[in-house]
Amino acid sequence: MKLYELRGKDDVRFSTFAWRSRMALLHKGLDFERVGVGMADKETISFSGQKLVPILVDGETTVTDSWRIAEYLEDTHPDAPSLFGGDTGRRFARFFNSWIDSQVMPVLFPLLAVGVTTLNAPEDEAHFRGKFEGLFKKTLEELAEGREAGLPKFQRLLAPARDLVKAAPFIGGAMPLYPDYALYGVFIWARIVSSTQVLKADDPLAAWFERMLDLYEGEGRRQRAAV
Amino acid sequence: MKLYELRGKDDVRFSTFAWRSRMALLHKGLDFERVGVGMADKETISFSGQKLVPILVDGETTVTDSWRIAEYLEDTHPDAPSLFGGDTGRRFARFFNSWIDSQVMPVLFPLLAVGVTTLNAPEDEAHFRGKFEGLFKKTLEELAEGREAGLPKFQRLLAPARDLVKAAPFIGGAMPLYPDYALYGVFIWARIVSSTQVLKADDPLAAWFERMLDLYEGEGRRQRAAV
Repeated sequence: MKLYELRGKDDVRFSTFAWRSRMALLHKGLDFERVGVGMADKETISFSGQKLVPILVDGETTVTDSWRIAEYLEDTHPDAPSLFGGDTGRRFARFFNSWIDSQVMPVLFPLLAVGVTTLNAPEDEAHFRGKFEGLFKKTLEELAEGREAGLPKFQRLLAPARDLVKAAPFIGGAMPLYPDYALYGVFIWARIVSSTQVLKADDPLAAWFERMLDLYEGEGRRQRAAV
Repeated sequence: MKLYELRGKDDVRFSTFAWRSRMALLHKGLDFERVGVGMADKETISFSGQKLVPILVDGETTVTDSWRIAEYLEDTHPDAPSLFGGDTGRRFARFFNSWIDSQVMPVLFPLLAVGVTTLNAPEDEAHFRGKFEGLFKKTLEELAEGREAGLPKFQRLLAPARDLVKAAPFIGGAMPLYPDYALYGVFIWARIVSSTQVLKADDPLAAWFERMLDLYEGEGRRQRAAV
């Protein structure tokens, strides 16, 4: 299999969505090759008929969108460790994934987005800045000034997930499930793009994140973090 | 078993938490007696050592808090239909329940709270108004003026739940599970305290709510709604 994922300057891989797919492949114990794709490089992925990464290619099959990749891996590898933990668990994962995308990442992203500019390839810089400054109607630097007020809000938003990791090592319980990877994607993105501590040191989610970084022989720790 | 639940004027039962417990008991197919408790009546429930309803009394056992009641019913009646759908499902239910309490109900409550005053017993009116006007630093009437802006925000917040009921009849899948009852508690509270339509007519969640009202021989429809 090949996983096409966003690539920044010096081959850094910071995409929150690609991390979900990468962890899902590792969870299933599958071999895969990683193919980096620049933000502006639509040529490499034109075969997929759309413009977004991650993309999974499995023989003749092309799967786009990180959630569909998760479902594809679960359905094609039912005997490998489950990503969802059953039918109700699949609904949990879908709900949680959608909660991250619609309610969690939108709060954190503008606070740290300025850090992405240090990781963008030179040819992507103007596009990235223009896109998000247009969306938020502020410069990325102005958005970063919202950190002091925004981070406590972000931390409060995570209360329902925090409850779960107080009661068990992972959101999924004794072992991680896809909701763990969806939230991990938020924190590892933050760790790569910014040196800002987005959680308080004594937050149970901070200890959970350390456990997540340890998974699969420390896969997450291999990616250089912001200094 | 006895379920102690908040009682308003003319015996109306509008508590979002009591509805969760009532539906959980019906889901389990258990017989129970409902005991109405006025907002100011701490005497009737002093046996529980705390001041909040709902309370479930099962023989010698007293269980407080709607979430703990759900876990108690699941654990003491494992052969009745499951409220959670397994261990991962229990984590889903806990997460979802906490999401409703911390992120959904706080957005809707202030918009409709003025309607509760029409249902409060006369002796509870001043207490209720004082408590929430102090909390929000606005009169209940001023809070109600936020409906036009607030309801679209409330509807957007529900996107992750809406996704699930587009794909299956209930949040739990083919049959309702506790997350259905947690969200149902929000909507039936709204239906009793206010004639405001909190969902657009073509929202998939509006059709889901009608299915929920039909459950258990139309239990929810038996409670008079606001006109």
